[in-house]
Amino acid sequence: MQIFSYDHLYRFTYGIFTSIGCNAADADTASKALLAADIRGIDSHGVARLTGYVRLWETKRINATPVIKIVHETPSTAVVDGDAGLGLVVAPYAMNVAIEKARIAGTGWVSVRNSNHFGIAGYHAMMALKHDMTGIAMSNASALVAPTFSIERMLGTNPIAVAIPANKQPPFVADFATTTAANGKLELLQRKNVATPEGWVQDKEGNISTDANELKKGGALLPLGSDREHGSHKGYALGSIVDIFSAVFSGASYGPWAPPFPAYVPVPDDMPGKGLGHFFGAMRIDAFRPADEFKEHMDKWIGRFRMAKPAKGYDKVLIPGDLEREMEKVRIANGIPIEDSVIDELIVLGEKFGIIL
Amino acid sequence: MQIFSYDHLYRFTYGIFTSIGCNAADADTASKALLAADIRGIDSHGVARLTGYVRLWETKRINATPVIKIVHETPSTAVVDGDAGLGLVVAPYAMNVAIEKARIAGTGWVSVRNSNHFGIAGYHAMMALKHDMTGIAMSNASALVAPTFSIERMLGTNPIAVAIPANKQPPFVADFATTTAANGKLELLQRKNVATPEGWVQDKEGNISTDANELKKGGALLPLGSDREHGSHKGYALGSIVDIFSAVFSGASYGPWAPPFPAYVPVPDDMPGKGLGHFFGAMRIDAFRPADEFKEHMDKWIGRFRMAKPAKGYDKVLIPGDLEREMEKVRIANGIPIEDSVIDELIVLGEKFGIIL
Repeated sequence: MQIFSYDHLYRFTYGIFTSIGCNAADADTASKALLAADIRGIDSHGVARLTGYVRLWETKRINATPVIKIVHETPSTAVVDGDAGLGLVVAPYAMNVAIEKARIAGTGWVSVRNSNHFGIAGYHAMMALKHDMTGIAMSNASALVAPTFSIERMLGTNPIAVAIPANKQPPFVADFATTTAANGKLELLQRKNVATPEGWVQDKEGNISTDANELKKGGALLPLGSDREHGSHKGYALGSIVDIFSAVFSGASYGPWAPPFPAYVPVPDDMPGKGLGHFFGAMRIDAFRPADEFKEHMDKWIGRFRMAKPAKGYDKVLIPGDLEREMEKVRIANGIPIEDSVIDELIVLGEKFGIIL
Repeated sequence: MQIFSYDHLYRFTYGIFTSIGCNAADADTASKALLAADIRGIDSHGVARLTGYVRLWETKRINATPVIKIVHETPSTAVVDGDAGLGLVVAPYAMNVAIEKARIAGTGWVSVRNSNHFGIAGYHAMMALKHDMTGIAMSNASALVAPTFSIERMLGTNPIAVAIPANKQPPFVADFATTTAANGKLELLQRKNVATPEGWVQDKEGNISTDANELKKGGALLPLGSDREHGSHKGYALGSIVDIFSAVFSGASYGPWAPPFPAYVPVPDDMPGKGLGHFFGAMRIDAFRPADEFKEHMDKWIGRFRMAKPAKGYDKVLIPGDLEREMEKVRIANGIPIEDSVIDELIVLGEKFGIIL
């Protein structure tokens, strides 16, 4: 493990993106979106995936010079075609469309087709905050999750993020996979060779498993709730809603046909749409009540939940976004630790383009 | 247990609502919204609650002749003040506002304050379907749920419903509490005097419990996910989002201050807003892509998920809404079974107003 400053990783990432052909603005946008994961402590979604994005470019599944455009719109909605661009570029474009719609119509809702993985959902949702808007971001992803009562992988980990502004309190920022455990957490246990808790994965027959390598053996991740008795049909419904809003609304590929992130996995046959899909929303807080009044009550809401009586062994109740914000402070001050295996990969990646990590 | 036809229950319910002072249109609206629960098999939310609504009217916490109005709006949003009316009347009003906004702006989003319990969320979301719109409905509710790491009841079971139209396939209709188990399911086990599965409730110290009566002893329901290891922070975030969209957006009372449904429980001191809150959304499907094309892909989505390989012991994978729709067919044909304890209550209720069940 080695510690890198944000700026160091930014320069490297920016260099890689310009090397594959991104223009300066897109390379900047993509680098910031990608590194938002590292700085917030979601290590699975940051520079650890940079090599993966480049491999998708090498196999021509990512277009470094996309012409992103609105293909359909109403006062409060739009469909954006990402032209197979980096999701890290397409998503901020689409979120800005949602924000601009919201300025006029009160809210803006944008469904996106023909995109690729967009990093962490929370980054895009949080773009709305500085405009005094609530931001929403979702994405479908390649199928790793079995619906309740099924052994077939039909849905991605399909994240949902919601960011709501406050005043004196920091904003409320929820950002979560609609599975019991995110795939990144599973990968962590794989590397450590440790068993998972029950309820994260099932084997290929649908039996309970605690094997962190179950996905490699035909098993599946479980929807939030784990099993029917604990509400997995709700997690399955949530993941489905994300899939439909992101891909059926826009004309992206959905369900088991969502294109995979690893470039060595072929895209599914007979895809019913183009690329991955996302869904974004922006709601002006003063489209509902005066902004000052709204924020005062958000402060009160957050303050009251912070004071909720903690259970034995815990000193406080967390507000969604607290952990990531605390991590961001630490990492801005002390740098971002990167695992050796990721460093090795990044060095090899840099050598391809003559860029030193 | 006794079987009643829908029409029989409708006449009774309509009679009660007119007896407390509702006009004919409101009594009709409220009866249909309430009985949508019974006909769809969600027995906890239907006529079983009629006496509870009347008690709230008796204590002047429900206004039978509300002047419901829009108090703030933009092209795609509105805030509705329910004037302490029946949620069963206020919610359809607000959902219609969302639908009308969507006709012009593409989508409509309505947050509601000063309302009361609105029955099942799914009924209101489904109102959008016949307009070729996706419908969304949420509500906050009195606090029974402890956030992750807490022993204090801070959130209601805060349901989310999403209804999405298809063509040959029936619509996708998800409708679920953001807890591991709905309170209605817990009440069922209480009546049978049966233990709950682990993960539904905790005791007042925050310990794991399987006592279905735990809520009466100061315990709490658990957010979807049950515990941190199984993603309860996600259920906590979802319940919080429902609370904020429904109540902080609109100026209703939120979190632990949400007014309780049982009329004998006093309303909290220092409520930060008025009554319960709801949140509704309507999105024209052709605000995103041509309606025919959209529905064709929804048919394909639903058809593909129906064909997902079932796990051992299951013959098929369900689409959200399947069970309730099948139940509706059965109950339209054969009538609605009502438990003896509910019948006894309804007879007493009817006698107050000279209405025979």
